Amino acid sequence: MPHGQELDSMFYPKSVAVVGASANPVGWGGTGFLRRLKEVGFPGNLYPVNPNATEVQGLKAYPDVSSIPRHVDLVIIAIPAPGVPDVLEDCIVAGVKNVHIFTSGFGETGEEEGQELGEKTREIIQRGGLNVIGPNCMGLYVPASRLAAWGTKPVGTGHVAFLSQSGGHAELLTGYAQGLGVYFSKVISYGNAYGLQALDLLEYLADDPDTSIITVYLEGIRDGNKVTRLVREINRTKPVIVWKGGLTDSGSRAVASHTGSLAGEERVWEAFFAQTGAVKANSLEEIIDIVLPFLYMSPPRGNRVLLLGGGGGNSVALADICSREGLEVPHLTESTRRELNSFIRLAGNSTRNPLDVWQVQGDVDQFRRAIELGVADPVIDMVIVDRHVGDDPDDEHRPDERERQRAVNDFIIDFARKNKYNKPMVVAMTVFGNDPSSAATAAGLRREFATAGIPAYSSSTNAARALARFVRYHRFQSKTANYNH
Amino acid sequence: MPHGQELDSMFYPKSVAVVGASANPVGWGGTGFLRRLKEVGFPGNLYPVNPNATEVQGLKAYPDVSSIPRHVDLVIIAIPAPGVPDVLEDCIVAGVKNVHIFTSGFGETGEEEGQELGEKTREIIQRGGLNVIGPNCMGLYVPASRLAAWGTKPVGTGHVAFLSQSGGHAELLTGYAQGLGVYFSKVISYGNAYGLQALDLLEYLADDPDTSIITVYLEGIRDGNKVTRLVREINRTKPVIVWKGGLTDSGSRAVASHTGSLAGEERVWEAFFAQTGAVKANSLEEIIDIVLPFLYMSPPRGNRVLLLGGGGGNSVALADICSREGLEVPHLTESTRRELNSFIRLAGNSTRNPLDVWQVQGDVDQFRRAIELGVADPVIDMVIVDRHVGDDPDDEHRPDERERQRAVNDFIIDFARKNKYNKPMVVAMTVFGNDPSSAATAAGLRREFATAGIPAYSSSTNAARALARFVRYHRFQSKTANYNH
Repeated sequence: MPHGQELDSMFYPKSVAVVGASANPVGWGGTGFLRRLKEVGFPGNLYPVNPNATEVQGLKAYPDVSSIPRHVDLVIIAIPAPGVPDVLEDCIVAGVKNVHIFTSGFGETGEEEGQELGEKTREIIQRGGLNVIGPNCMGLYVPASRLAAWGTKPVGTGHVAFLSQSGGHAELLTGYAQGLGVYFSKVISYGNAYGLQALDLLEYLADDPDTSIITVYLEGIRDGNKVTRLVREINRTKPVIVWKGGLTDSGSRAVASHTGSLAGEERVWEAFFAQTGAVKANSLEEIIDIVLPFLYMSPPRGNRVLLLGGGGGNSVALADICSREGLEVPHLTESTRRELNSFIRLAGNSTRNPLDVWQVQGDVDQFRRAIELGVADPVIDMVIVDRHVGDDPDDEHRPDERERQRAVNDFIIDFARKNKYNKPMVVAMTVFGNDPSSAATAAGLRREFATAGIPAYSSSTNAARALARFVRYHRFQSKTANYNH
Repeated sequence: MPHGQELDSMFYPKSVAVVGASANPVGWGGTGFLRRLKEVGFPGNLYPVNPNATEVQGLKAYPDVSSIPRHVDLVIIAIPAPGVPDVLEDCIVAGVKNVHIFTSGFGETGEEEGQELGEKTREIIQRGGLNVIGPNCMGLYVPASRLAAWGTKPVGTGHVAFLSQSGGHAELLTGYAQGLGVYFSKVISYGNAYGLQALDLLEYLADDPDTSIITVYLEGIRDGNKVTRLVREINRTKPVIVWKGGLTDSGSRAVASHTGSLAGEERVWEAFFAQTGAVKANSLEEIIDIVLPFLYMSPPRGNRVLLLGGGGGNSVALADICSREGLEVPHLTESTRRELNSFIRLAGNSTRNPLDVWQVQGDVDQFRRAIELGVADPVIDMVIVDRHVGDDPDDEHRPDERERQRAVNDFIIDFARKNKYNKPMVVAMTVFGNDPSSAATAAGLRREFATAGIPAYSSSTNAARALARFVRYHRFQSKTANYNH
């Protein structure tokens, strides 16, 4: 198993060779990788490797890796599968340690030819002591070293790592997260894992000073017991958020086609979550949903949530959602209700909890009074604010509605940031219908809250689920703290 | 219990009086109702009732209902709660039968004053034999009679009815559904149900020739056994889709604040669904999601679904989702796979099922070949097509990508409409990230598919869930058919 320092030269390479980069500027694969490394301003040396060209994209091309006159920290292989073993042998000759194999067409095809090629590749990797990411994956995305040959172009560095057996998920997450102001330390798409395993990469991330939250998409793992022990250990100081794909029978079959892994059974993974305290996610969106409170919020004192929304039916739905996710929605204390009732009319509203008060949704002064009273209530540990987005049919008769909403949203951002009661607060968007412009408004508003450092969600269900997972993580940690120290 | 003909005069009134309409053109309540009835071109007589005005919004105002010189088919009451009993007495004097009480502030407040007012109101309703919708609700929305004093302005009539204890949900659904090309026969927001109950309204909808699908948001019901029997009966010919709010403890408490109903316990409702075969929904969005296949698709032969998407990780997720929802994702037969493999390269793709084939997503000819082969396979009963929406980082290098996607989408619409294999097909949008413009594009594309008569969903999870409920409905019907006939 490689030690951390050795892998540093892979994550922070000073030189990268791309095997399979051609002059044709379109298309992905090696050509796209090289182009993107140039576009994002990779500061080190770039070496196209292509036996049929002397120059590729304005750079001198080499016929093979061992012809490159200087040391190469990372080789990216993007040629058809049958040629991969020879390139690996060439890397060994050249003294290259770190290789990303983008190429697919190995064991995951389920065909004999691919299986044999896979065996051969594994053998060379082991014999050469190579640090290999892949095959059948996108590889490494490290904004800090401008190693970002794919995914959304990074505009910042952060402290979240994403370890993913799926290249598609890794690509998607780079854009999804960044659009919400969440930045990465490392994104690692590692595919079939013929070389570096989840275990190796988790060990690296555990010690990585740039990573404080680890998110994972797993299809299958080797060394289950070791991974479980390691995740349990890491999770104490760096929350580990895991989405396990292929938990169902159909999903497991799809896993075999995807990365050729054998997906574990659902109950084995339930045990994994129970033992490690890792936070369970069920989709890519959920991973980011859950990251947000970990990034921005201090641990809540309990699971009692104040819901501030509008509409009776909507309040019932919100309360049901929270309850299903394991959050409590306690009645506010009598003294809080008395104060609320002094300015909120009873008819059409409710001041228990959920605070179902249409009148405050577009009135910043009333909103302020309501939320101050609700948050201060000792029965409350945290807050979900439900914001309605979209065209109300009556808006045409309230020309100042947009300004009123703006004032409330500005207040929410300010109030949540100051957080004077030290109670976590998140915001959920409730969109009126399928109207494209409302969808855009909701996404924009969500982005605005999230980039201001306030966990924000595309629905109240998602908000409640993320908060519930956040609460559960901290409960697990405090329960197991006695045994650990 | 009123018979259908009597209620016809309420749903198709030739005259409406609005008690509490004032000259102030802003705000909702009576004033807003009157204004909207004029805006949507209500063809009958409109009578504002307001003791302090002689004219309201250009119409002659009357001091009370009994002063109106002609018969009034429907009275809408929108004045503060304490005044409601007197107006009801006046309605009895005037010989009015049908009343909608918009006003809230009765039993649902939980305060003594509201409870007493509620008792008094119930007594008058019963004594006068009035057909009362409400109180504490939005009332009736009947596009065919242009009785649409609230909600999104109707642009068409349809065959879906929505019966809702929540006014907020009813308002939201009018816009949500219409934006997807789903039109209503009747939307009924009936609130505290002091007069007409769920049972009465369901009986009316059962016999209503304009209604073929009945959707319901319930908080609590009286006459549980009668409702269960009735729903079981209706459900044989008109699918009944039910969202029960307040299934959890917190939700139940919110129900009490909302419509003052006592929400049943979760297991009682599980029995309701098991006995009636009613289709269970868990949100407003799910109601419409489930309506779509009932509107457009014939019953599937089984629960075996073909998934056509792209990306290995995404395919695993899709297969997991389907499996969790009770759909099977069978391997395609060997002969189908052989034909698929003749033009789809194995590396990076999978031709089992899910059909994980990036190359067809933007290539209409390949898409056509792939889907024809997949749908024709005898192991397949229905299809979910997963469409990726949003900016791919590489799009800038594929300037014709938009046109290519357009061609595939046009093909999907045509293929689904022709449906030559008679296997239901739905489309799911998978959005890249939280980008506002992608969100708008996805909503627009969903609208396009849905208004073309193809069930379309904002996520593959939602698509799988809706299809699974649709399959379950038809299984229930065929299982119970033997006992019924």
